[in-house]
Amino acid sequence: MNQCIEKQLSHKSIRRWKEKEIPDEMLGILFDVINRTASSMGMQHFSVIRIKDKKLREEIRKVSTQEYIESVPELLIFVVDCYRNSRLVNEIGNFYKSASDMDRFFQGFTDSVLAAQNLTNAAESLGLGCVFFGSILNDTEKMIEILKLPKLTFPALGVEFGYPDQEPMLKPRIYKEYKIFVDKYKILENYNNSLSKYNEEMKEYYDLRNENKKMDSFNNQIIKILSNSNKKRSDILKVVEKQGFNITEENK
Amino acid sequence: MNQCIEKQLSHKSIRRWKEKEIPDEMLGILFDVINRTASSMGMQHFSVIRIKDKKLREEIRKVSTQEYIESVPELLIFVVDCYRNSRLVNEIGNFYKSASDMDRFFQGFTDSVLAAQNLTNAAESLGLGCVFFGSILNDTEKMIEILKLPKLTFPALGVEFGYPDQEPMLKPRIYKEYKIFVDKYKILENYNNSLSKYNEEMKEYYDLRNENKKMDSFNNQIIKILSNSNKKRSDILKVVEKQGFNITEENK
Repeated sequence: MNQCIEKQLSHKSIRRWKEKEIPDEMLGILFDVINRTASSMGMQHFSVIRIKDKKLREEIRKVSTQEYIESVPELLIFVVDCYRNSRLVNEIGNFYKSASDMDRFFQGFTDSVLAAQNLTNAAESLGLGCVFFGSILNDTEKMIEILKLPKLTFPALGVEFGYPDQEPMLKPRIYKEYKIFVDKYKILENYNNSLSKYNEEMKEYYDLRNENKKMDSFNNQIIKILSNSNKKRSDILKVVEKQGFNITEENK
Repeated sequence: MNQCIEKQLSHKSIRRWKEKEIPDEMLGILFDVINRTASSMGMQHFSVIRIKDKKLREEIRKVSTQEYIESVPELLIFVVDCYRNSRLVNEIGNFYKSASDMDRFFQGFTDSVLAAQNLTNAAESLGLGCVFFGSILNDTEKMIEILKLPKLTFPALGVEFGYPDQEPMLKPRIYKEYKIFVDKYKILENYNNSLSKYNEEMKEYYDLRNENKKMDSFNNQIIKILSNSNKKRSDILKVVEKQGFNITEENK
């Protein structure tokens, strides 16, 4: 065990921060960590947009419906970026269909998420508190407009961070024996029986977003999420296609 | 700066390991880190398959064409897993279209990649050497067969790790000013001019996979990758669909 792992094992999403800016030197180091992240075939198919402008934050809040966006010291959006390399080779007269295929898109999506987690580990190791910000996917078309994203780019995931001003409980997780298998996927006979203890544990967890109420069982959380299907989110590939990616091989 | 960040800033892919097993206690901690990773809406839409069996490793080597798979102490495959939660609610009589939509798929893909990076940071903090293993995407249909993956699951990314037996050079990265922007995406006037110094730096980098030869310029690396388009990789959504996900809203 070491300090890095201690931080990882005590990871909690932070959604309230002190009114204290992060020093530029610290930010510089965090940006270096982002930039050092491994990427698919070394292509570095991601970019990051740091959101400082208040009006932009307000527009993004409308997409995500999360109030705390406007008060968080730092908000970074990780973006699939196949545009940069495409321009790089186009300028010297090279054009390839594969620059806009789904292989590239998934490489870029992977690169973006790797960089977001790498940043989060670095920020938490410095005592900062983070929350991933997946609700930018509520309306990717709007996010593309807000961030002025060119073709062959796509918003993947955001991270918000600052000095924490709350101490949430450690949130229960499904036990690792039901997630980590050896040599082949293991299908359980009865998921409700296997996960019953976890289900109960979740009821003892208090979410600070709603301090007076305990959490619902895991089952009921899943039911609530699955019954609130979001058309814009499930139609994500339409926007991917609009951004210039060929979502099927046939379209090439 | 601290030890965690020092490790992150000196990250290098390791592709040769000592013949030394990782102690079970250390593996247990790494699995705990994987399990603690944040996930989209707390749904934990990922699973991990640890590959120990030699025959399976041989089959996976054929998919990836990477020789070192057979000698690495640990090989983990991170899998999008919307099957577990789907079964959990189905068993108690609840069926939702959104359990198999692209919103769920992308949440699971994100969760898988976050967990893979989180593991990598933990492993590197313990002195282990890692490499991401994206070439499982060369043939996802075959990987699904090898790992016996049920519907609503999908192989996203692998990580290989062990005690390092090589010391690669630090690989140059595109400078962060061309990757990290403020408030909006910044399109450069001329990418070749802006990245010319980086292009030259790459030529001084030796890749240990080919020790006697310096690396090509970044431009030429990209040209080489883009001109070797891989149909199975770019057709990834066909396999996603075969796994039971509705890739378009219309199919619902």
